[in-house]
Amino acid sequence: MPRARIHRIATSGPDDTSGLRDLIETGALEPSKLVAILGKTEGNGCVNDFTRAFAVKALKQELGSAAEGVSMVMSGGTEGGLSPHIVTFEVLDENGPGAAMAIGAAISRDLKAHEIGTFIQIECVAEAVNEAIKTAGISAADDVHFIQIKCPLLTADRIAEAEGPVATTDTLKSMGLSRGASALGVALALGEIDIATAKTTKIGVDANVWSGRASTSAGIELMGHEIVVLGMSSNWTGPLIVDHAVMTDAIDTASVTASLDRLNVGEHAKLRAIFAKAEASSNGRIRGDRHTMLDDSDISSTRHARAFVGGALAGLTGGCDIYVSGGAEHQGPDGGGPVAVIAERTC
Amino acid sequence: MPRARIHRIATSGPDDTSGLRDLIETGALEPSKLVAILGKTEGNGCVNDFTRAFAVKALKQELGSAAEGVSMVMSGGTEGGLSPHIVTFEVLDENGPGAAMAIGAAISRDLKAHEIGTFIQIECVAEAVNEAIKTAGISAADDVHFIQIKCPLLTADRIAEAEGPVATTDTLKSMGLSRGASALGVALALGEIDIATAKTTKIGVDANVWSGRASTSAGIELMGHEIVVLGMSSNWTGPLIVDHAVMTDAIDTASVTASLDRLNVGEHAKLRAIFAKAEASSNGRIRGDRHTMLDDSDISSTRHARAFVGGALAGLTGGCDIYVSGGAEHQGPDGGGPVAVIAERTC
Amino acid sequence: MPRARIHRIATSGPDDTSGLRDLIETGALEPSKLVAILGKTEGNGCVNDFTRAFAVKALKQELGSAAEGVSMVMSGGTEGGLSPHIVTFEVLDENGPGAAMAIGAAISRDLKAHEIGTFIQIECVAEAVNEAIKTAGISAADDVHFIQIKCPLLTADRIAEAEGPVATTDTLKSMGLSRGASALGVALALGEIDIATAKTTKIGVDANVWSGRASTSAGIELMGHEIVVLGMSSNWTGPLIVDHAVMTDAIDTASVTASLDRLNVGEHAKLRAIFAKAEASSNGRIRGDRHTMLDDSDISSTRHARAFVGGALAGLTGGCDIYVSGGAEHQGPDGGGPVAVIAERTC
Amino acid sequence: MPRARIHRIATSGPDDTSGLRDLIETGALEPSKLVAILGKTEGNGCVNDFTRAFAVKALKQELGSAAEGVSMVMSGGTEGGLSPHIVTFEVLDENGPGAAMAIGAAISRDLKAHEIGTFIQIECVAEAVNEAIKTAGISAADDVHFIQIKCPLLTADRIAEAEGPVATTDTLKSMGLSRGASALGVALALGEIDIATAKTTKIGVDANVWSGRASTSAGIELMGHEIVVLGMSSNWTGPLIVDHAVMTDAIDTASVTASLDRLNVGEHAKLRAIFAKAEASSNGRIRGDRHTMLDDSDISSTRHARAFVGGALAGLTGGCDIYVSGGAEHQGPDGGGPVAVIAERTC
Repeated sequence: MPRARIHRIATSGPDDTSGLRDLIETGALEPSKLVAILGKTEGNGCVNDFTRAFAVKALKQELGSAAEGVSMVMSGGTEGGLSPHIVTFEVLDENGPGAAMAIGAAISRDLKAHEIGTFIQIECVAEAVNEAIKTAGISAADDVHFIQIKCPLLTADRIAEAEGPVATTDTLKSMGLSRGASALGVALALGEIDIATAKTTKIGVDANVWSGRASTSAGIELMGHEIVVLGMSSNWTGPLIVDHAVMTDAIDTASVTASLDRLNVGEHAKLRAIFAKAEASSNGRIRGDRHTMLDDSDISSTRHARAFVGGALAGLTGGCDIYVSGGAEHQGPDGGGPVAVIAERTC
Repeated sequence: MPRARIHRIATSGPDDTSGLRDLIETGALEPSKLVAILGKTEGNGCVNDFTRAFAVKALKQELGSAAEGVSMVMSGGTEGGLSPHIVTFEVLDENGPGAAMAIGAAISRDLKAHEIGTFIQIECVAEAVNEAIKTAGISAADDVHFIQIKCPLLTADRIAEAEGPVATTDTLKSMGLSRGASALGVALALGEIDIATAKTTKIGVDANVWSGRASTSAGIELMGHEIVVLGMSSNWTGPLIVDHAVMTDAIDTASVTASLDRLNVGEHAKLRAIFAKAEASSNGRIRGDRHTMLDDSDISSTRHARAFVGGALAGLTGGCDIYVSGGAEHQGPDGGGPVAVIAERTC
Repeated sequence: MPRARIHRIATSGPDDTSGLRDLIETGALEPSKLVAILGKTEGNGCVNDFTRAFAVKALKQELGSAAEGVSMVMSGGTEGGLSPHIVTFEVLDENGPGAAMAIGAAISRDLKAHEIGTFIQIECVAEAVNEAIKTAGISAADDVHFIQIKCPLLTADRIAEAEGPVATTDTLKSMGLSRGASALGVALALGEIDIATAKTTKIGVDANVWSGRASTSAGIELMGHEIVVLGMSSNWTGPLIVDHAVMTDAIDTASVTASLDRLNVGEHAKLRAIFAKAEASSNGRIRGDRHTMLDDSDISSTRHARAFVGGALAGLTGGCDIYVSGGAEHQGPDGGGPVAVIAERTC
Repeated sequence: MPRARIHRIATSGPDDTSGLRDLIETGALEPSKLVAILGKTEGNGCVNDFTRAFAVKALKQELGSAAEGVSMVMSGGTEGGLSPHIVTFEVLDENGPGAAMAIGAAISRDLKAHEIGTFIQIECVAEAVNEAIKTAGISAADDVHFIQIKCPLLTADRIAEAEGPVATTDTLKSMGLSRGASALGVALALGEIDIATAKTTKIGVDANVWSGRASTSAGIELMGHEIVVLGMSSNWTGPLIVDHAVMTDAIDTASVTASLDRLNVGEHAKLRAIFAKAEASSNGRIRGDRHTMLDDSDISSTRHARAFVGGALAGLTGGCDIYVSGGAEHQGPDGGGPVAVIAERTC
């Protein structure tokens, strides 16, 4: 029977793999069991953030052949007090009672530059997501709580060499379109939207069309998609459980409190990891108060949002090694975002 | 009998005084009763933040002769979802039961460039703080909950023209030294430290020497200090009450919850305004987790800290028009900071 | 006979008008003769740059009623070694030989938010430019060397309140569209393009359609256009002469050298002022070498370009009080831009 | 007889080694002959610039065992139009006439955190520089034209773990102190200053003490120093020649023109590479004009200076693949900096 195991490992820099190595050396982590590694690195999380690729290169070097087939999703940007770290996901084989947290993973084909931010990307992602759910052995879409996708972006070079017209020539904006199309791919796969909606939704514009369980990050280092699915499955065993919340705005801590309660965190379980999306609301308001994130030409709004939502979640949970990823296009309602919570049953 | 009245007014830009004007026109605010205006403006909150001076210029133009003697303390930086706004403080004359929130204000002499960040500044501030407490009619130092100080900073020009050696030639650092010396002036005035400690404390270095009630902001637009004191006094009447918390770190929301409870917010009072200080802990850690605020050469750590602590407080209180000011040198423990809470009794 | 006079005045901050005041007090500048003031202020030159409005407010306060009808065009951003300053343009009445530099000015109607970045803006600008050329008494389009336009931009608030669909919801991008449409308005007025081209040009996209004499800046502080025209006219007298170059890329100093030579700078004239546009080439290359300006999510490409072109021009001319304005959409070829040079005949 | 060969290779990202690989595959570059690689990468060039380490990691992976003993000095920051690239330095064995450009290299011991920015660092560097000059076979100090040093910096973590008091707790400032101490080490080794001066100079403060040939860069990826020396030697052969200029300020292109003339660039030689230092003058002025680089809290002054001086040099030479490195503490006069020029004799 499959059993999920996770480790949350602090890093001292993008290429620091010493914590991972220590766990391997003590036997607490078996490289051959790894299916995914998610992490926060300390770059700007935008176009020219090379810390993600640097981290992946270091992890691959550290893991050697065991890295083969492991989905590595680094999200740049540890603004405010957010702490750089990685979370490893292993699948062990163990008998025991279900249900428990299940993990699935998949990798899509590479996109061409002109496909980024279009319906072609939505379809490509939906297909790969369905494959990942199947590999996870999750039987119902409702049992899926988190789908993390690493997706590509456009650079000046890629635009110059594109085969056809690109969705945008603004490189920063291309990250948003790619994240948005990927999230719509999740929504399509989970039945949150139908194919007709997927086709007609204006990517990056129709903010009322969204997935409550997608978390997508754009990176310069790939042209395809790396997909990790988390959910509950009666086919899995072990102490880990997972749930999700959908924050309705940047300060909706109540929704996360409800999710922690559903998992009995505090009483019968302890918090093990949080994965959240954050973004600036497009109407420039939070509960009626004007924010300035979208008007700031010195700091990207994605950096503002990560710092702020990171503060809200860290203030709630008392820890800073939280995965908060910027750019929540079509991921939760405008200005809000999905939050996945992993806990460990303590009794 | 004096009675304090406050208005929290949203602004659409640094020079937006329309909200203030509306309240004046409807009679809800009497310019002649104003003693202080605190506000958050949307600049970077660092050396080259001209939004503070721009806001003050606009407020003075709007108020005309009524601006005379009104202490105006604009703090730059509305990172994350923080919302630009001003809070006006009026003193009305009204009979009624005490005790209630009391307000005092004072303005110090102008410093010379070489005095900024030195013991001379500490002394200068302590003297002016004592004067402000006296004008507030607050009888005991324990009843003081918040002392806001706007203090000067060094610019390249001021350094070049200084009469003597300046405390630092790093303009951004000069803001920290000035804020620190001002906070130590508060600590000295309130008896939190003695004169011997004040003399020997290495400003900006000895982080374990601090005031739990000082909130200081540096601005390019003045060379003296503008001081506002808030506290409880049996000589004052009205529904407003004030308390303070000292956050021990950037995510210590528990301390603020305790303060809200002391004021019976929720049950017998409603929250009217929050004034908090934020800073990155100098050891690079928050509850053991590494943060990257001090290593980020693209975004000042003060901007990171405002966004993050702003998120923590907004997530706790459900509102974004919070005054969070960066740079908490000698204001609360390293990495934490004082938080003043004003509430209005509802029964 | 009209005679142009200019003063280049250093400023110590956005609201510093002391240099202007000094010239007025000594009689070297007559406020009633002012028709325009152009200046560089030290903000970020992007959406949330309030130094422009702050400077204008201070200038208006300083000039009082004499500010009426004076076109004030502040361009934000003094990156690199560029030096904040203003250039005043007066029109005196004096008999003497022609030809000499002529000045004209005009102000367009306010645009509505949804008109920004559209053909409506092009038409609106062309009309106002023709009016300004007429007021300058310049007889041929070829004698026009510089048309400076201050144009509006979109903010989150303006987008939210727009009457119709806006050209973009990206506030930084709105600055580019507005600058581009304004430049095309100049091209239309000068006959550099015809009306059919103006109608079909994709604003912000068709980089091969441009004016060689337009210089446009977007600012948050206005919704209309402030227009200043400089050219040579036989109806004007005085020592000032004006010419222009079109830089073909960011390092095309040869074109400026040629313009300086046409004006006999060095031998029979001395350089008095330079007004240049700068931008990052959209193909990500300068003479084949890759640049990173468009991929940098920490610093706007307009800031990079101002610093770099500013360096090229300051290295050529030996002075840093140069007006280099970012965002050269449809102003000169892609990656290059127009440069106006004002000199004073010395014999 | 030793003969120097260099290749200037464009890179498409910090970890792009494809250009290097191509040259190796065609035989144009022999890895076993490499002694040094200098390069510009597109990070922020400040504390949290991981592009330097990423580039070095990629180069080492590409070169394999041939990387052993090759000094790799990546300088972060390609602001403005500066173009990311590397310059490889090989030493071939070939008979022919002298004199020609000579190369030497050395690596110092690792410093401890508390030694950074102190006299101990000066001594450590001077010793290693003398070793590098000796390995180059350069007989007189006057024949040395360029000494590139990569030196360490402090991070929050290194400060927290330091054995003794560190020179500064400001991580960005630590880069300046380390660069300054390294430059003074060069000055000491070249006889530009004596030991007494080296001991009494206040590092980072006494700007009038400097080396005209040092170029130092701080990086997070090492704790020692990597040193490369370029000079003229009668013991070397080949077409390469080297000279240097000392820019007196950020726009002193005349000094570089003189150096190009000394090398007969244009007539008998062609320009092959430029290595320059840039910094903001500490008095806030360039030829009397105020600059704002030191007052900008959004962009580090080192980034401003690289963009601006890069523009001046690219405008002069017509190419953007120039090595301009920020932070010229004790490297040339305040606000200026050394510039090394390598040319190839064409006849």
